[in-house]
Amino acid sequence: MPSTNPTYNIASIPGDGIGPEVISAAITVLQKLASTLGTFAFRFDHLPWSSEQYKAHGRYIPDGGLEELRKYDAILFGSVGDPDVPDHISLTGLRLTVIRHLHHYANLRPTRLLRGCSSPLAALSANPSLLDWVIVRENSEGEYSGQGGRTHVGTPWEVATEVAIFTRHGVERIMRFAFETARERGRKKGKRGKLCVVTKSNAQIHGLVLWDEVAAVVSKDFPDVEWEKMLVDAMTVRMTLHPETLDTMVATNLHADILSDLAAALAGSIGIAPTSNLDPTRANPSMFEPIHGSAFEIVGKGVANPIGAIWTAAEMLRWLGEEEAADVLMKSMENVIEKGCRTVDLGGDARTEDVTSEICRDIESGL
Amino acid sequence: MPSTNPTYNIASIPGDGIGPEVISAAITVLQKLASTLGTFAFRFDHLPWSSEQYKAHGRYIPDGGLEELRKYDAILFGSVGDPDVPDHISLTGLRLTVIRHLHHYANLRPTRLLRGCSSPLAALSANPSLLDWVIVRENSEGEYSGQGGRTHVGTPWEVATEVAIFTRHGVERIMRFAFETARERGRKKGKRGKLCVVTKSNAQIHGLVLWDEVAAVVSKDFPDVEWEKMLVDAMTVRMTLHPETLDTMVATNLHADILSDLAAALAGSIGIAPTSNLDPTRANPSMFEPIHGSAFEIVGKGVANPIGAIWTAAEMLRWLGEEEAADVLMKSMENVIEKGCRTVDLGGDARTEDVTSEICRDIESGL
Ligand SMILES: CC(C)[C@H](C(=O)O)[C@@H](O)C(=O)O
Ligand SMILES: CC(C)[C@H](C(=O)O)[C@@H](O)C(=O)O
Repeated sequence: MPSTNPTYNIASIPGDGIGPEVISAAITVLQKLASTLGTFAFRFDHLPWSSEQYKAHGRYIPDGGLEELRKYDAILFGSVGDPDVPDHISLTGLRLTVIRHLHHYANLRPTRLLRGCSSPLAALSANPSLLDWVIVRENSEGEYSGQGGRTHVGTPWEVATEVAIFTRHGVERIMRFAFETARERGRKKGKRGKLCVVTKSNAQIHGLVLWDEVAAVVSKDFPDVEWEKMLVDAMTVRMTLHPETLDTMVATNLHADILSDLAAALAGSIGIAPTSNLDPTRANPSMFEPIHGSAFEIVGKGVANPIGAIWTAAEMLRWLGEEEAADVLMKSMENVIEKGCRTVDLGGDARTEDVTSEICRDIESGL
Repeated sequence: MPSTNPTYNIASIPGDGIGPEVISAAITVLQKLASTLGTFAFRFDHLPWSSEQYKAHGRYIPDGGLEELRKYDAILFGSVGDPDVPDHISLTGLRLTVIRHLHHYANLRPTRLLRGCSSPLAALSANPSLLDWVIVRENSEGEYSGQGGRTHVGTPWEVATEVAIFTRHGVERIMRFAFETARERGRKKGKRGKLCVVTKSNAQIHGLVLWDEVAAVVSKDFPDVEWEKMLVDAMTVRMTLHPETLDTMVATNLHADILSDLAAALAGSIGIAPTSNLDPTRANPSMFEPIHGSAFEIVGKGVANPIGAIWTAAEMLRWLGEEEAADVLMKSMENVIEKGCRTVDLGGDARTEDVTSEICRDIESGL
């Protein structure tokens, strides 16, 4: 009987700094998972798009590169950022260009307290399951539209503007995706979905009122999702004091940027959390990356924490529809952290390869 | 010898809901402090500007009211907000009108863990002194300028904008005030001042770059203040994980709105923190208010927590130059909380008047 197992074609963009080290760890673990489960396979193409390449050839992405990307099932991204290149150049030169070109209008940030990790919140030490969130970030417009400017520069009467753009199209598609995400999370738990729509419509009375209105319209198509609105300032309080009352949240580009950093800090996962840049229409491959940076100070020492990239790999599996494999991977990853095999940033003394091979061992032994 | 003790003329605007109950408590305590210390006196005029008045006469502020306000040394504000009046009407009808008219361009939010209060952060339970901050919020422009609008409303191609306006004048005056605040806090501790300038200039590249530039210019006049820049998203992480590394912070209207709510939550002071709306030039009287709302559900029951209004009164004393009296008041207030005389929101069963009279007793007994 010929096998009908899928083979996923992945573009890997390890990028700068510790990017290549952690992406290599993630790929090792993914291949182990594929060979152990035997129900799917991976093929990786490595694209050397990086600040090295920029410094040598004046650009991050070669001619035709963006079109090339379209043929993959997903993109696994390491990190971009180089001491010799201004941040805005490395950011727009590579990461933002891919995101814009492939219409990654949804950014997803799952946040929870992994077994073996600790939270700064006292309540969570006692009961880690109180925090299990996903933040949906609008990734294509809003406060990051780039519009605005400066007039009378340098004079005492200088005026600068930042113009946040919200289109009904843009708000509706992210809202719809957020409701779907909430519904899906509910379904898995055998409950109604739960969504909190974050705005600041009492002070930002044009674009954020549009958010409120669109939420009300879209919600009609999701009678199985309980939803509510909350102001972004009050949201920080609720996340801190009542984490158990939240599940899925959706917010603008800037608001969600702030809230997701706070979320990661509260879950003790700054440095190990993943983020997904998604085209929910699936017309284009989505891109998965750890939130940590290129961490040049530890490059080449073999001590980079691969957990961010491995959690990222689990998120990629989920998006590809391999839910079970993602669950296996998360379980093995948490087993290894819990038993104390941790890199220095998590208070241990394990090396990148120790953590990686322990996770591989755990995957094999669990099945 | 004729007395040269100052008498401070204060406009009290108790406002809505529990506003009158807590402002009355604050005034009782202030009068006790004045009579006990014997070095200054207070005279209060009560202005009945409230949603009641709005519902009866169609406006919050009577003809000539704003001009009247100018003759006072300070304004003590309770709360505004009424179940029968839309929030944006009560907010702009009273509070924002006063703030704009009297050029209260600086909003100050002191945050620390009071003795007897508890924080959700585990590290702070062990060592409350790790958190002692003041957040300076730009109170006159930025994301709250009200500019922007909506085009093609209700169509699939609708576009809404929120336009944040930053003037060099506006940024410079708040920056200068923030540096002065940091310097002053340093002076009291016998150290260099310490200021963190919060921006998001990697993504908001017009107005927030102006913030960065103005900070660099203004800092030259404050060689005795150590200062640094930080991105607003990373700031939430630092506040949560390393509170002891922060002292004075300055941020835009929206960024500081978010950060100050987070700060209050981390310090366990949501519901009891004060805020000051200041005209640092002192051309106009400044306005002092608790951050809590009108809390209609408990009106008239005698259980409202007066701590927010009393802490507010201490901030007013400081602004009037009565530093010692402010210190006495804070000490008595914390003594009373610490010994367990607390209203229900702080986990006790004391009534408003119990807390108030205990603080008065403590003031007397301490001197
Ligand atoms: C009510 C609201 C507009 C206000 C603000 O954002 O300024 C409030 O959150 C505050 O912080 O005083
Ligand atoms: C680097 C910066 C522009 C970026 C953002 O704000 O989007 C980062 O904070 C993030 O969250 O990925």
